[in-house]
Order: sequence, then structure tokens, then C-alpha cells
Amino acid sequence: MMNFGSIFLSEALGTGMLVLLGVGVVANVLLTKSKGFDGGWLLISMGWGLGVMAGVYLAYKTGGHLNPAVTIGILFSGADEYAPGIDVTAINTLAYLSAQLFGAFVGANLAYLAYKRHFDAETDEEKKLGVFATGPAIRAYRWNFATEVIGTFALVLTILAFGHTPTGLGPVAAALLVVAIGASLGGPTGYAINPARDLGPRIAHALLPVNKPAPAQPARVPAGVAAGYRPSLDTDEQLVSEHSAEPRRKNSDWAYAWVPIFGPLAGGALAGLVAQFVF
Amino acid sequence: MMNFGSIFLSEALGTGMLVLLGVGVVANVLLTKSKGFDGGWLLISMGWGLGVMAGVYLAYKTGGHLNPAVTIGILFSGADEYAPGIDVTAINTLAYLSAQLFGAFVGANLAYLAYKRHFDAETDEEKKLGVFATGPAIRAYRWNFATEVIGTFALVLTILAFGHTPTGLGPVAAALLVVAIGASLGGPTGYAINPARDLGPRIAHALLPVNKPAPAQPARVPAGVAAGYRPSLDTDEQLVSEHSAEPRRKNSDWAYAWVPIFGPLAGGALAGLVAQFVF
Amino acid sequence: MMNFGSIFLSEALGTGMLVLLGVGVVANVLLTKSKGFDGGWLLISMGWGLGVMAGVYLAYKTGGHLNPAVTIGILFSGADEYAPGIDVTAINTLAYLSAQLFGAFVGANLAYLAYKRHFDAETDEEKKLGVFATGPAIRAYRWNFATEVIGTFALVLTILAFGHTPTGLGPVAAALLVVAIGASLGGPTGYAINPARDLGPRIAHALLPVNKPAPAQPARVPAGVAAGYRPSLDTDEQLVSEHSAEPRRKNSDWAYAWVPIFGPLAGGALAGLVAQFVF
Amino acid sequence: MMNFGSIFLSEALGTGMLVLLGVGVVANVLLTKSKGFDGGWLLISMGWGLGVMAGVYLAYKTGGHLNPAVTIGILFSGADEYAPGIDVTAINTLAYLSAQLFGAFVGANLAYLAYKRHFDAETDEEKKLGVFATGPAIRAYRWNFATEVIGTFALVLTILAFGHTPTGLGPVAAALLVVAIGASLGGPTGYAINPARDLGPRIAHALLPVNKPAPAQPARVPAGVAAGYRPSLDTDEQLVSEHSAEPRRKNSDWAYAWVPIFGPLAGGALAGLVAQFVF
Repeated sequence: MMNFGSIFLSEALGTGMLVLLGVGVVANVLLTKSKGFDGGWLLISMGWGLGVMAGVYLAYKTGGHLNPAVTIGILFSGADEYAPGIDVTAINTLAYLSAQLFGAFVGANLAYLAYKRHFDAETDEEKKLGVFATGPAIRAYRWNFATEVIGTFALVLTILAFGHTPTGLGPVAAALLVVAIGASLGGPTGYAINPARDLGPRIAHALLPVNKPAPAQPARVPAGVAAGYRPSLDTDEQLVSEHSAEPRRKNSDWAYAWVPIFGPLAGGALAGLVAQFVF
Repeated sequence: MMNFGSIFLSEALGTGMLVLLGVGVVANVLLTKSKGFDGGWLLISMGWGLGVMAGVYLAYKTGGHLNPAVTIGILFSGADEYAPGIDVTAINTLAYLSAQLFGAFVGANLAYLAYKRHFDAETDEEKKLGVFATGPAIRAYRWNFATEVIGTFALVLTILAFGHTPTGLGPVAAALLVVAIGASLGGPTGYAINPARDLGPRIAHALLPVNKPAPAQPARVPAGVAAGYRPSLDTDEQLVSEHSAEPRRKNSDWAYAWVPIFGPLAGGALAGLVAQFVF
Repeated sequence: MMNFGSIFLSEALGTGMLVLLGVGVVANVLLTKSKGFDGGWLLISMGWGLGVMAGVYLAYKTGGHLNPAVTIGILFSGADEYAPGIDVTAINTLAYLSAQLFGAFVGANLAYLAYKRHFDAETDEEKKLGVFATGPAIRAYRWNFATEVIGTFALVLTILAFGHTPTGLGPVAAALLVVAIGASLGGPTGYAINPARDLGPRIAHALLPVNKPAPAQPARVPAGVAAGYRPSLDTDEQLVSEHSAEPRRKNSDWAYAWVPIFGPLAGGALAGLVAQFVF
Repeated sequence: MMNFGSIFLSEALGTGMLVLLGVGVVANVLLTKSKGFDGGWLLISMGWGLGVMAGVYLAYKTGGHLNPAVTIGILFSGADEYAPGIDVTAINTLAYLSAQLFGAFVGANLAYLAYKRHFDAETDEEKKLGVFATGPAIRAYRWNFATEVIGTFALVLTILAFGHTPTGLGPVAAALLVVAIGASLGGPTGYAINPARDLGPRIAHALLPVNKPAPAQPARVPAGVAAGYRPSLDTDEQLVSEHSAEPRRKNSDWAYAWVPIFGPLAGGALAGLVAQFVF
């Protein structure tokens, strides 16, 4: 039986490692002068996927959720335990979720430190936000939401299936699954598929001195649209916001932030419900 | 002992996941503005391969065939069971095959939804069909058929060998095998190696509003020739049809559809027969 | 206790699969109009490596050598058995070696059939030979020989170490090891590291109608120098032959063929001797 | 109970294999005319990662540290043994560290021999050093040090977690972890994350005849700044040395050499200390 603190520590460690490696690989591919610059989508998918592997090893005692959508998915699946010896209770749920967000925040800060001089040398504000947080290739909130729901549903349903199969590949299978989701369903939104992965680094982006627009030439392109290595082609279309008429905040693109929070949560919950019937 | 419904559910889930991730990765690489645009053949091979891994986990109870060629291969191998507790009977065979086709159709629809705005933004009809269905790089039906036979034979024979080896790597080994087939034998036809993988999405393509040629400039290039990320270089040669003099239907390229159905079935059956003698 | 025929069948099947997938991936990357054209060195390394995985599954009963250098390495390591139940005897050695060469020849023919129309459409003779057989990036026989010795030594020594470790990852570990050798030591010679892998396809190349120089413009570039996806930059240097003053045969580059035969055999034997002392 | 000699032999073998394959993959990607030229950052990450896999198999008896930072991390974690049957003692620590350095030196020499003619043909001194030793993309010693600390901390902490999880994936998990670190945190410094991996090849570079500037046009660019496949963009910035006013030695960039030694050692020690509290 693990208490709040030990659950928190385990999940924060694992999620911190995931986000350190995940934000790191995007920095490596996006930021000027980095040795992995322009390394391609497979490199990004591998970095995030193998980041999951490392994180699951660190958070093995708590089942390595690393992702509120996974925790919520297990909750909605009607399971008794989040991991062996950890009951599904309100306080334990809170331990998981808060640890994931905290770990993601810390991991993003570490990745920032690792690439400090590359952030300093980078003049494209859009790319700098893209290292931290996801953003849509074509901004259309409802469809972006749908993409996050579908991607997270695929992720969590398969993870829930792991528990019903006799393989001992846990961390590696989870890693390869995340590589697959990124490779296959990451194109439209940069695949948050994890509210903590997006919100934690977005908060870090807002607090860190990374996001200083140069005074001489204020950024005219909307911040936060380039989550992948390839900047959007059609800036005009990205300015269209179906969902809200309010002007988007430029710096950390908070107008979009609800999509990678509620999309994954909805997808995870849906997967949990479906799992009750199909497994 | 599983009944028709539970077999159907399991295989449909697994094949749906496979095709969601497989069609998804092609959309990511082919469609304009997608973050994985031009991500390369290895990314495509990884997406399909790891899609198999996820699908096998979901369909673990039915052995994770996900592919009529695998089911037919097991049938021709003279095995008693399709999976532990599932006898080789006509009705069970029907459950597998119908579920695979249905799952593939649903999976393709989900991938369409995930990439909806990217389909809307894409003007190249050839690419849009290429996301759903396979097509030959050089159109030559008999040779395309041969390629599908050889690729599926390699796939199914190796899968049948899995059962004779003491490793517990099932889903990951199957995934890597499909990566290998795609990397190695996918060049000429885009490697259906699975009738459901091709027919289900092709039906989806025909029914969905994806395939609307713009009225102003009707598509002159034959639809359905670009299954990989690289459009064909020689349009003239692709127009040559050795097998049939009838004009090909432009929209979903039904003239080619028999190749990725009967080629894989022949290859799977052949592998089953060979397996009787060599294992 | 397996007899000559059953050893031969097992190893020929496995080596045939390896070479089908290995020659296939090079065809995919090199040949005009193939969907994987220009897919990069990692794709080639993955194709060969995962081809080993598939082949090892097929040849599981005989230990999945698939490579004379492995068989010779085990022989020189002083082991009693080539695989459980297969003694190290002259006749069994012959069964392994002849099966590997025969399987490689058949596999190359199947790959040729799978890519038939792409071979027909290809006008670069150098590339066509490069699909089948290896060749040096910089022709320097003694150094090419050294590279093959080093690469095969690394391969076989690590394979011999597998037997001393308690993991059940056999086929996947072997696959990843071959990916590593290709990625790391394949640059100078295209990494035969396996006499059968090179000689079988080279014989196929000599016998098949693949190698017909167009009568109008006879090939002036030396055949057989492009084993990887990147043709050599410096044709002059390649014409320098340190080892022999006799004119090289243009078609299948038999002048080079001894290097990928004796280099790997020497490397495998050396690994076997070293293994006696270090494990 | 293993003695000094048997520990030394095991770790030297494993580290030699790691560095042979790791230096080899960089040579393949960087050096003119190599078949894997310009193969990308993922290829480099895979080569080093799978080199770890091969090395761990060879050094299985000693736990496959292959890296002073791992040995020091275990020391600081308060463990009793470096591997089953090998106590944590001063003499054993010395056996590990000296073997790792020696093995790395020998492995770099073997990689040099494998690529001998490609080194001869290469005129870019910066690239030649980059094959052997790491170097910063943006030279800023304190931040480069921080990057190495963070990367090695992530590596060693996860490796220490392996021992607390019930998977038998040891060598493959370690390999994938190193792929992840390279993909994600290798951008700024080329990820030594291992003092022996950097110092051994750097010594080899200094002793081998690889580093002969052509007399006619002496190298004006600072040697040793390109550890990855992508030469630095901003030469001026690289000339800035925060840490030392003494002129850097041109040939093997010894001015930087302390970073990839002490950064990884600090990161490994830190991981060991943290592991005492979190596992």
C-alpha cells in the first residue's frame, strides 16, 4: 500500500523523465544549430516513445501511468486498482494527476536547461513554443479536439489491453505504442494525447525567460502553431478560430490549451468505458 | 470456446486499430500541411508495423490475425485451431474474415476523421486515394499480383513459424516482421499483404466525401496510383493495363482492387501449404 | 538429431527469407520508381536486420545461422553442437554452408521477381548489381577485406555471447545486432558480413536477365560498385585495383567477389577463436 | 568472484564493441563517400544505442557498465555489488574504469581501420575529429557541462531503475534508452554521457595519423567542434570560450575534453545519490 507521497514521487519521476526526453527531442529537431536539426518526424516519434519507456521504468511501482488520460482511463474502466497495491480512490487519483503535472513541469525545465544556449540563439518564437507545447497544423478547434480524442482513445485502449495479455514487454511495448501513435496520428495536432505533457511544459514556457519577443520586430505569426518540426504552410488558415472570437494570447497560445487537456481526457475516459465491454 | 460475436468483436477491434494507425501514418506522410509530411518510407513502414503490434494486443484472444491472408494461411496449414479455444470451422472462418473487413472499414473512417481538415485542404486526388488504398508504382497487374503473393507468403510463413519457437515476443515480433515486409517488399505495390487492409479503406474512400474532383479541373492522372509517399514518375506507363482492356474507374481505382485481395490470399494459402511440410 | 536434409531445409528457408528481404530493401531504395526510393541508410539497415529476424524464426531448429561466417565461427569456437541436437561434423557443416548458399540464391531470385518491372525500368547497371551484391565505396581490396573482417568479427563474437546470457530475445537481438553492424560498419563496403548473402545473389545476378547493357550506350562505369543507395562519387578512384592487375569483369564484378567471401570467413573464424578465451 | 583481470577483460570487450560501433556510425554518416553519408541523427542514435546492446552482451558477466558514469553511479547509489559476485571495492572500481578507457581506445582504433580509406579521402579535419570525440554545437563550457550532467543523470537513473523491475529485456532496454538520450539530449554536445567513450577515442585521434592538416591550406576552422553529422553554423560563436582564456589546442580539442569527462561523472554520481532515496 503506497501513500500519497510515494505515489507522487514515483509518477513525478516518471513523467519528468518522459517530458525531459520528449521536449528534448523536439528541441533537438527544431532549434537552430542543434545537431539533430531537421531530423524528421520519426526521430520525434522515437524520442517521445522511448521517453515513455524510460519513464515507465522509473515509475514502475505506480504502474507508470505518466499521463492523466491513462489514469482516467483506468478509473473509467472500473478497475479496483491503479497498480498492484494502489486502490482507485479520490486521493490516489489526485496523487497521480498532480504528480504528472508537476513532473511534466520539472521535466520541461530540465530540457530547457539542456538546450539553454540553443533557445538563446533561436529567434523564431513559434518554434520555441513548439518545443514546449503542442499546436495544430491547421487550427480548427473542434477537429483538433477530435484528433486528440481519437489518438488518446487508441493509446489508452491498447494500454488497457496490455493487462490482459501474457507478455512481459511492458515498458518496451508502451514505448512502441507511443511511437506508433505519434507516427500515425500526430500529423494534425502534434499529439499531446496527455494533458500533463502539454500543460506542464506550457506553464514552463510561460514562466521561463524563453518567450521574449525581440522589441524591434514583434512576432507577427501566431505563437504556438508549430509543434512539429515543420512550420505550418498556411498562416492565414491558422488564424481562423472556429471556437472562440476572443483574440488568442500570443505568447503561450493559451487559447488552444484546452484542446490538449480535454481531448485526451475524453479519449481516455472513452477508452475506459469501451474496455469494460470488450475485454 | 468463443462464439461468433466474441470472435468478431476481437478481430474487428484489432483490425480497426491496425488500419487506423496504418492509414493514419500514410495520411501523415502524404497530406499537405501534416506535421509528418514527407516523413519517408521507414516512417510508413514503422507506422503499419507498430499498428500491427497494437492490433495484436487488442485481438489477443483470437490470436490477432487481423488479416484474411493469415486466417487463410492457418486454414491451409491444416491446423485445428485458429487460436486457443477457437476451432477451424466454416463459421469461425467467416467470423474472422467479416470482422477483419468491417474493422478495416471502421478504422479507415476514424483515420479520416483524425485527418479531416488535411483531407479538406488536399487538392491531389491521387494522394487522397493513396492514403486509403494501395496502388502500384508501375501498373502491371500480373507482376503486381506476383509481388503481393511473394510479400504475403513471406509474412504468413514467418508468422506460422512463430508458433514453433519459444519466444514470448508475439506482438512485437509480428510488428517488426511487418516493418520488414514493408521496408523490403513494399516498393512495387505499397504492400497490401492483407485483403482487408486494402478493401475496407477502399470502400471507405468510395463512400466518404473525400473523393470529390474539383469541377474546374477534372483529375487527369489516374486515381489510385500513389500508395506510398512518392508519386509515380511515369504516368504513361501506369496507364498501361496488361490485364484488362476495360477503362479503369477513376475514383477509387476498382480496376486494381482485385490484386491486393487475391494476391495476399494466394500468398497466405501457399504459405500454409508450405508450412505443412517445413515445420 | 537432424539429418542432412532437414538441416539443409531449415537453413535454406531461413537464409532465403533473409536474402529475399535484404535484397528487397536495397531494390526498394535504389531502383527507379520504387516507393521507397532514396529511403536512406537506416531503412537499408533495418531491412537487412529484420530480415535476419524473420530468417532466424524460420530456421529456429538449426539455430538460425543463415551465414557461413556464423557456422565457421561456431566451429572455431570449439563448440560440440551447431544447435541443440546437431553435432559439429563435416557433413553437418557442409549441410549448413550449402543450404545457406542455395537459400541466398533462391531468395535473390524471389526478390528479383518482386521487383521485376523496376529492374526492367532501371537503366543504371551499377544500381542493378548493387541490389544483388555488395561493392566497395572506395575500391581498395586489402582495406575492403579488413572492413569485412572487422564487421564480421563484431557480429559473430556478439552472437557467440548470446549463448552465455539468460535472455530469450534471440531473433530480435540478432536482428538489432545486424542493424547495428550495418549502421556502423557498413559504410565502406556495404557490409556483406556473410559470404552466402553476397555470393548467392551475385550468381543470381550473373544468371538472370537483369544485367543486359543497352546496346546503344554500353555501360562505361564499372559494374558493381554501388552496393548502398549512394553511388560512389569518385569513379576514378574506384578503378584503382591494388590487388590485381587483371581487368575486372564488368558484369557481376567477380574481381571483387572474393572479398565478401573470405573477409567474413576470416572474421567469423577469428571471433570463434577469441570466444574460446573470453567467454 | 571475479578477479581484476576477468573484470577488465569483460568490460574492455564490451566497451570496445560499443565504441567500435559508435565511432563507426559517426564515420559512416560524416565521412565523404561512405554509403551512409548524411544518414541523419536517428541513424547515429541507433548506431550508438545498438552498440550498447552488443557491448552489454559481451560484458554480461560484469553487468555491462561500459561507462565510468554507470560504475560511479552504482558506487554512489550505495550498492554492495557492481554485478552479481563483484563487490564494490576500490580495486574493482579501478578494474572497471581502466578497462572502459582501454576498451574505448581499442574500439576507436578498430573503427579507424574499418574506415581507413575514408579517413584518407576526407579533407575536413573538423569532421575527422567529430568521428572520434564529441564537441559542442555552441561552445559554452558551463552550459555544455550542464547538458552532459542532465543527459547522464537521465541515463544512469533509468539504468539503476532497471534493477528494480521484473523485465528480462536488459540489453535491449539499455540500447533503447541510449537511443532515447541521443535523440533527445544529444543536440547541444553530441552526448558523450560516458567519459570513456569520449576520452578513449580522443586519445586515439591524437595518436593516429588521422589528424594531419594539409600543408598547403592549414585548417582555419577550430578542430573538434563537429561531433554530429551537421557542422556548426556559427563559427564565431564557437570560438568564444567562457571557461578559459588559454588558446585551445587545435588538433584534438583538449580544451573541451574535461566537459565530457566530468559532466558525465557528475551526472552519474548525482543519479546514484538520488536513487538511494527514490527506489
